[in-house]
Amino acid sequence: MADHAADGPAAHTNGQGDTSRPVTIAYIAESAGVSVPTVSKVINGKAGVSADTRARVEELVNRYRYRKPAGAGRSNVVELVFRELKDMWAVEIIRGVEQVARRHRAGLMVSRFGLHDATPTWEDTVSRRPNCVLSVAQLSETEREQLTAKGIPFVVVDPITELPDDVPFVGATNWSGGRAATRHLTQLGHRRIAMISGPEDQLCCCARLDGYRSAMQAARLPVDPELVVHAQLTREDGCVAGRSLLALPEPPTAIFAANDLQALGVYQAAREAGLRVPDDLSVVGFDDLPVVAWVDPPLTTVHQPLTEMAAAATELALTLGRGEAAPQVGLEIATTLTVRASTAPPKR
Amino acid sequence: MADHAADGPAAHTNGQGDTSRPVTIAYIAESAGVSVPTVSKVINGKAGVSADTRARVEELVNRYRYRKPAGAGRSNVVELVFRELKDMWAVEIIRGVEQVARRHRAGLMVSRFGLHDATPTWEDTVSRRPNCVLSVAQLSETEREQLTAKGIPFVVVDPITELPDDVPFVGATNWSGGRAATRHLTQLGHRRIAMISGPEDQLCCCARLDGYRSAMQAARLPVDPELVVHAQLTREDGCVAGRSLLALPEPPTAIFAANDLQALGVYQAAREAGLRVPDDLSVVGFDDLPVVAWVDPPLTTVHQPLTEMAAAATELALTLGRGEAAPQVGLEIATTLTVRASTAPPKR
Repeated sequence: MADHAADGPAAHTNGQGDTSRPVTIAYIAESAGVSVPTVSKVINGKAGVSADTRARVEELVNRYRYRKPAGAGRSNVVELVFRELKDMWAVEIIRGVEQVARRHRAGLMVSRFGLHDATPTWEDTVSRRPNCVLSVAQLSETEREQLTAKGIPFVVVDPITELPDDVPFVGATNWSGGRAATRHLTQLGHRRIAMISGPEDQLCCCARLDGYRSAMQAARLPVDPELVVHAQLTREDGCVAGRSLLALPEPPTAIFAANDLQALGVYQAAREAGLRVPDDLSVVGFDDLPVVAWVDPPLTTVHQPLTEMAAAATELALTLGRGEAAPQVGLEIATTLTVRASTAPPKR
Repeated sequence: MADHAADGPAAHTNGQGDTSRPVTIAYIAESAGVSVPTVSKVINGKAGVSADTRARVEELVNRYRYRKPAGAGRSNVVELVFRELKDMWAVEIIRGVEQVARRHRAGLMVSRFGLHDATPTWEDTVSRRPNCVLSVAQLSETEREQLTAKGIPFVVVDPITELPDDVPFVGATNWSGGRAATRHLTQLGHRRIAMISGPEDQLCCCARLDGYRSAMQAARLPVDPELVVHAQLTREDGCVAGRSLLALPEPPTAIFAANDLQALGVYQAAREAGLRVPDDLSVVGFDDLPVVAWVDPPLTTVHQPLTEMAAAATELALTLGRGEAAPQVGLEIATTLTVRASTAPPKR
């Protein structure tokens, strides 16, 4: 259904800004000093080409920005790539992709590739020639070039590091989410609000922390450097960070954690310290995992619209896969604060 | 990799016990009074055949037990079918399938089909011609026949209803799990042990309940009919059932719930009644969802090896997909009791 196969040369520029001359496979072959079938093998991810030749052809394909005609040789499949398949939110992403793929009558292929994995599934992915690739993992520059060379459009879902401007992505409004969570606490009357942030190299964590700072400033509250700590995005590390914050001479009355798992760790640290949530300590998380509505007390958290993000990314990827222009190639879907029972005005 | 394509007639019997004459497409066509290409279209799930003709051909294909040669025309894909994609344990199943598919260099396709769904994704699944289908959903007889007619082997993962003997499946040892959970409670010294069972039409729930009865009998404890209740497998229904059990004139000192969600509902009912787990009430669940290690207190539960079940089902399906005989076509993977902090000896 999403296939509008069109043969013939790709109507793209040759990288010199000369739009009058579309780059053809024949042109690439001539430039590389190889045969047309050899170039075709490289573009279609087939075997039977030496590594040297493959590298030379790929380099030319990228330099001349050759693109396969949209839809040509595609399998009407959306391929969703994870680095890991262990997080319980993976299923929310899969659900969003499946909804949209189904509407377009495209199949959904799920794969996983580790950074240090011996099995070359990335090559498998490329050689399957999906209409488009959705990556929940970060794609390296090499991986992006491989897809580009093979005319497979891709979209990064929930990017965690900075990407070049031309890489399509769908994320969440992390800064606004961090701001809303913190504002909720200042409006309840809290003044000593701590933030457990995530690793400093994760873009989403930087944005959440900046949202916290922004809300603190808007409420004319100073940010005590003692109250901002960094921890891995796990329950264990959230617990360790919570313990250290609660052991301060002047402990916080509220803690905003960079994700729900950390917030559950803070619950444990509070129990150990004999503090009740929310009477003695307010806690806010980020993600809104299904589980956090079931813990005691149910967690106030920032809802991350993973299913909607995945659906939007799939629409975008399929649009690009049809060779159409997308209205925008990067967008953030709004987060929303879900107030449950872990936050209350401070006693002091 | 898993494709050992072989053309020619399928070497199967014609359903009359006459193994000397393999049923060919030509034979089916002759019997149905249609052309060979028409039969081929039906078998390969292509359009362009009237509903009447399709039904007649499918009926003959099934009656004569025609099988496409193993591997012919397959796409080296394992297709995993869910009725719903909302449970957090879906990702554990996907992970198990992905591990095995990756090792066999097969792609993993994930799809979902609702019972009352307008979009005909089931036809899409069949026409994609995967090597094999893994169904977490129940397959209706019609669906099983469609797959069989098209030579696509299938395996049911975690069947919830009784299946015909020849349907391959991989489940969990639900009866043993129910028995182990209950024995753990009797060994702690509990005598009034309640069971919140699931819907009576779910086979896994019947097995868990019978395991409970068996362990009670082994401990020479009577099963008080008041202490066995049925509820949906949700947190809300578990809470309602828990409330009613705790309101009995002689309430139980321990509750075994048919799944973890129900057990979390019992936690809430206990809190409402001012009872502490495990001091005043022991609670055991079933499934071992990732979340139950994080609740307070961490839940003692029966671990359901979903990833291992999915992996075993995939190995089985791929074996059948290669046209090879499987050592067994139905198996149950062992459950194990995971003791955490929600169980203790009774006070009384």
